[in-house]
Amino acid sequence: VSVTFPEGFRAAGVTAGLKPSGRPDLGLLAAEGPASVAGLFTTNAFPAAPVRLSRDRIRRAGGIARAVVVNSGQANAATGEPGDADALTTTVEAARLLDVDPAEVLACSTGVIGERIPMDTLAASLPELVGTLSSDGGEAFAEAIMTTDTVPKQATAVAGPYRVGGCAKGVGMIAPNLATMLAFLTTDAHLEPSALSELAHRVARPAFESLTVDACTSTNDTVLLFAGGAAAGDPIAPGSRAWAGLEVAFAEVAVALVEQLAADAEGGSHVVVVEVEGAVDGADARRVAKAVADSPLVKTAAFGGDPNPGRILQAVGSSGATFDPADVSIAIGGVRVVDGGVIPQDYVAGELRGLAQAEMKEPRFVVSVTIGAGPGRGRAIGCDLSYDYVRINAEYTT
Amino acid sequence: VSVTFPEGFRAAGVTAGLKPSGRPDLGLLAAEGPASVAGLFTTNAFPAAPVRLSRDRIRRAGGIARAVVVNSGQANAATGEPGDADALTTTVEAARLLDVDPAEVLACSTGVIGERIPMDTLAASLPELVGTLSSDGGEAFAEAIMTTDTVPKQATAVAGPYRVGGCAKGVGMIAPNLATMLAFLTTDAHLEPSALSELAHRVARPAFESLTVDACTSTNDTVLLFAGGAAAGDPIAPGSRAWAGLEVAFAEVAVALVEQLAADAEGGSHVVVVEVEGAVDGADARRVAKAVADSPLVKTAAFGGDPNPGRILQAVGSSGATFDPADVSIAIGGVRVVDGGVIPQDYVAGELRGLAQAEMKEPRFVVSVTIGAGPGRGRAIGCDLSYDYVRINAEYTT
Repeated sequence: VSVTFPEGFRAAGVTAGLKPSGRPDLGLLAAEGPASVAGLFTTNAFPAAPVRLSRDRIRRAGGIARAVVVNSGQANAATGEPGDADALTTTVEAARLLDVDPAEVLACSTGVIGERIPMDTLAASLPELVGTLSSDGGEAFAEAIMTTDTVPKQATAVAGPYRVGGCAKGVGMIAPNLATMLAFLTTDAHLEPSALSELAHRVARPAFESLTVDACTSTNDTVLLFAGGAAAGDPIAPGSRAWAGLEVAFAEVAVALVEQLAADAEGGSHVVVVEVEGAVDGADARRVAKAVADSPLVKTAAFGGDPNPGRILQAVGSSGATFDPADVSIAIGGVRVVDGGVIPQDYVAGELRGLAQAEMKEPRFVVSVTIGAGPGRGRAIGCDLSYDYVRINAEYTT
Repeated sequence: VSVTFPEGFRAAGVTAGLKPSGRPDLGLLAAEGPASVAGLFTTNAFPAAPVRLSRDRIRRAGGIARAVVVNSGQANAATGEPGDADALTTTVEAARLLDVDPAEVLACSTGVIGERIPMDTLAASLPELVGTLSSDGGEAFAEAIMTTDTVPKQATAVAGPYRVGGCAKGVGMIAPNLATMLAFLTTDAHLEPSALSELAHRVARPAFESLTVDACTSTNDTVLLFAGGAAAGDPIAPGSRAWAGLEVAFAEVAVALVEQLAADAEGGSHVVVVEVEGAVDGADARRVAKAVADSPLVKTAAFGGDPNPGRILQAVGSSGATFDPADVSIAIGGVRVVDGGVIPQDYVAGELRGLAQAEMKEPRFVVSVTIGAGPGRGRAIGCDLSYDYVRINAEYTT
């Protein structure tokens, strides 16, 4: 059900023929009335045409939108002004069929960078797409936005009288030539645009930014949050009790989607969660967590099932974070492999090594790093680097 | 000949038995008298014991040294105070045999992080090591410092009456669990320590920092420059004509070693040189070059022989450098694959793609990135990401 779990949203997904695979490739999510919307977009200096269009429309409309059209197959990035025209045409045509103002229709694309969307093909399927909108279309929508994903990613949560739903796609921060991580979160709670934007930055941003498959920031990454307000009640004020419940529910959905994305990462056979504590602040903790999760040597060691504490230490040491090496301890699944900046000689002798190896056989394991006694905590969710990652990314040709 | 190409240096390499492979593992480079010395050391927050010892001694002795002892097999990093004692003992024992002040003997180690050097084994071979010092021992020294390197890396250059020689080891910024890139450069020119230090930072640092195999900074990286002064003449002043010649010669040797290191990179089948111009300054240009050379998606595309301009664009766009996307052009071996921030439609159609693919079949190819009209230029030298990189780093166990 995902994005249609909350009241007041309809969705659909169809096969327009944009992808050679013949799988669903065109999706639509629509609110019953004007909904509050908040967006998180890629920081890449080459944002795709739909990213620029959606970012501008959210700003100009003051955080109100009615629908978003998503195509998979072509990223519509690095396509110049013709690409801008394609994104615009897509939303104008969808708005006409939905009978709403084009200024309230957003767009997302995911697929090959540099390729134009076959607009005739897309336009021919829009009537069917709008015609099949339904309040249980969440799954069809989640399937239509997939590229090389092997499973759709969906999650739901409840906060008192309110529902939160979400779906996402992406097998890398950038997938093989197919740019993008896309995520859509909905709620039937009544939230003003500014309140929704605060939720986006407080809850959704840290959750999605903790994910790293290959340290590559795509040109199309987008997270959109919609609050339709179908549930009864006044607007929920930041800081209120209802707000606190919604924060938890949004975090639950966002983290569940992030875990599903990590589990389906390209060529990944293990999810590696890096938890850091004791840093001077949260930013430093996240810097260390990302440095460990992104290190190719840590990632290949995770693939090989070799604890290799020297490599984790190397990554912590080159992260640029502030700490005293003598305060650094590292554990793998609870097995201490670095103590006070030193690899214990009973690790080298082999006893601890066997225990840590056993932990690494799990499909998901945690690397815990303590770098001092400060209040800063942070985490990163990544995966191993396997032969399959190389195969998928080396053999892929448009 | 490498480091013994200049007059006034002797070197040796022996098999002490520190490495299970039974290959040479202990080297010594010695100047005939007190030599000016300059060092570049890892910025990792966990510097190995020999790194800390050598850095301190160069500072305390005012840039004067007589010799450096290098072992391969154990990195002597993350070994705590016992590791500090091992590095100290090594230099004290070598100094006694050389009959020089221990304060003028430096140490380097390369090998497994966390393992102690078997000191009895090392000490037993020191007399043979000192006894075999010779003015044509450069090659034996270059072989003794290798870990998983498949070939020794050596280079020489001449600047008028002066000679410059060098050798290096390293198959990654960090090799498989075997920390380190080590490089040694020598000259018979007469250079004060301050002048040699200036050469180190002006010439050697940018050359070695342009190298990236896996974006991992080891705990043991060290570049040492020695100026013995065996050639006649007064100290050479920075800015003089002789200085300019030496700059070129040092750069020639450093770049030649860097190219040899890149060519022998772990699992690498292609050297990828990224040249950036038009940046606001050199730092921004180097940021872009490193971002492209380090991107796992660019590296797997290089392995697969797929030009994939969208991935290069993605890396440029997430580098954090300052530029206007509309000013960005990218070429592979001279074939333009991005023009004004856009992938040309005749690339997508396949004509340019075939030409760029042909360029990528070369064992070494250049990716040229122009990001504006600024004066900043920079380069990075990297390699592709292959099945072999994953195999070497996943299967390696201490």
